Amino acid sequence: MSRPDAPRGEEALIDRLAAALDLRRRVGGAVGFGDDMAPVHPDLPAWLWTCDQLADGVDFVSERHAWVDIGYKAMAVNLSDCAAMGVEPVSALCALTLDQTLPPEAALELARGLDACARAFGCTLCGGDTNGWSNPTVITVAVIGRCPDGLHPVPRSGARAGDGLWLTGPVGGSLLGRHLHPVPRVRESLQIVRRLAPHAMIDISDGLALDLYRMLEASRCGAVLETAALERIVHDDARQRARQTGRPALEHALYDGEDFELIVALPASAESDARALGLHRIGRVESGDPVVWLEAPTGSRQRVERRGWEHLRGPQD
Amino acid sequence: MSRPDAPRGEEALIDRLAAALDLRRRVGGAVGFGDDMAPVHPDLPAWLWTCDQLADGVDFVSERHAWVDIGYKAMAVNLSDCAAMGVEPVSALCALTLDQTLPPEAALELARGLDACARAFGCTLCGGDTNGWSNPTVITVAVIGRCPDGLHPVPRSGARAGDGLWLTGPVGGSLLGRHLHPVPRVRESLQIVRRLAPHAMIDISDGLALDLYRMLEASRCGAVLETAALERIVHDDARQRARQTGRPALEHALYDGEDFELIVALPASAESDARALGLHRIGRVESGDPVVWLEAPTGSRQRVERRGWEHLRGPQD
Repeated sequence: MSRPDAPRGEEALIDRLAAALDLRRRVGGAVGFGDDMAPVHPDLPAWLWTCDQLADGVDFVSERHAWVDIGYKAMAVNLSDCAAMGVEPVSALCALTLDQTLPPEAALELARGLDACARAFGCTLCGGDTNGWSNPTVITVAVIGRCPDGLHPVPRSGARAGDGLWLTGPVGGSLLGRHLHPVPRVRESLQIVRRLAPHAMIDISDGLALDLYRMLEASRCGAVLETAALERIVHDDARQRARQTGRPALEHALYDGEDFELIVALPASAESDARALGLHRIGRVESGDPVVWLEAPTGSRQRVERRGWEHLRGPQD
Repeated sequence: MSRPDAPRGEEALIDRLAAALDLRRRVGGAVGFGDDMAPVHPDLPAWLWTCDQLADGVDFVSERHAWVDIGYKAMAVNLSDCAAMGVEPVSALCALTLDQTLPPEAALELARGLDACARAFGCTLCGGDTNGWSNPTVITVAVIGRCPDGLHPVPRSGARAGDGLWLTGPVGGSLLGRHLHPVPRVRESLQIVRRLAPHAMIDISDGLALDLYRMLEASRCGAVLETAALERIVHDDARQRARQTGRPALEHALYDGEDFELIVALPASAESDARALGLHRIGRVESGDPVVWLEAPTGSRQRVERRGWEHLRGPQD
């Protein structure tokens, strides 16, 4: 697959690792390598799992954030991976490498945050591993989940020309505070898979533009975002952030990370049910190269950049 | 449960976390909180999982060790947790937070080591997560496994007075090099659970003495190690190390960490089958407080200390 922008940073490294180990061939079935969760085992087709690591100074800043919020977020990003695939989270493990200058109370607060978030979404934190060292704290959370009601996991690769593109909520400007307490769209995801038979889903961790590009690359098609529709899902925080940065609010909606809303590709037939669930239509999938276009009401198009937040490089702008 | 030595460091913290979150009540069934793996879900009684984190400078030293060996070891310690419970490892995920000054080749070597170890024991590495930062590298591996042939997992809490205590191999002095390429006793474990119906098992990560204490504390009984039997499982490396340190080789066998042999509590009826499998008898379980005694051929006893390698504190001696 050729990509307009050569992958760099984290994506480039993951590409190299996947090629070296032939991971793409190894992860078979409907769920592909690069999806938000991996299959547990061929004997358990309804069960998937995921594992995410958060590091102090990169994914959170312990000098500024409360440990209970950090724990909550570390769990939330994993539950968001479950939401991205239409999977119900059931069990979690946590591995900590703690800055050993931290008081034990910090670790307790961290654990309480992890646990509170898990319980809020029906998941049980059942154990883990704890170490100490003289560097900043690293938190890893692993989550196992199950597809409800005999349904299949929703990959990011199933979008088709003609699908509508939908969001579960407004995006942009999360840095104003929402990024500290993200709400994984677990409940919305389970409603979506039960009622709408989505073709593809992905959660927005690195920005609407970048994560939509990822869905399109996996699905081998393009997309059009309709400016008028997109304007309606610009978060108030994106508008406030735009006043701070002097850049358009729409840019913040497209390129800011850590929102954790879901992008959903739905067949046209699901439109009225999607509206009934409170989803917001932002555009449509079309055939062609994996490029995102922004379409004005006049029909004129401009290309949306393939950028957002990426680790190893920081914000890409 | 009262313990002769107050827990400190990692154990004390885990105790506090478990109490704060009431984890002991939450992890039900035969597998208890503090076991080497956790149950995946009540609907999947044969499936367990685990998650371990290794940090540069604590669990490995990237300046001195090859990345392929580091990856191998990070996988091996998780597979050893599977071996400890009589579980066959099937799938693995890996989350990396890489020192961003590392060349991509280091990450590739690390991944190759992880993968080679997994494949050597029938486990499939199927994905993960990669981040970068300006601190030393942290590696987390999560593994899911399954009890073979309809068997149940073997907890550390099942040892009973009258059981024989057995080891899968000699111990001590692993720091001379074996700790770089530990062999998880997966194959031995599966033979043991298929043929010997063990009451309890644990792998030796932090030393024979400390991990035996953990088994006894979970099982609420004591143990006697027979000096003559123990002498036969002192590893040659422990004898060489004794020449370096001036301490008895038996001390290195008792208190050195990172051996990854299994301690197995077996009913007396399994004795001849255990010998046929190549296990080494080192002593017996008795009723009473969770204390380990070293018994001379004359019958005189001395108490084995509850110490070994523990994180947050380093070697305890």
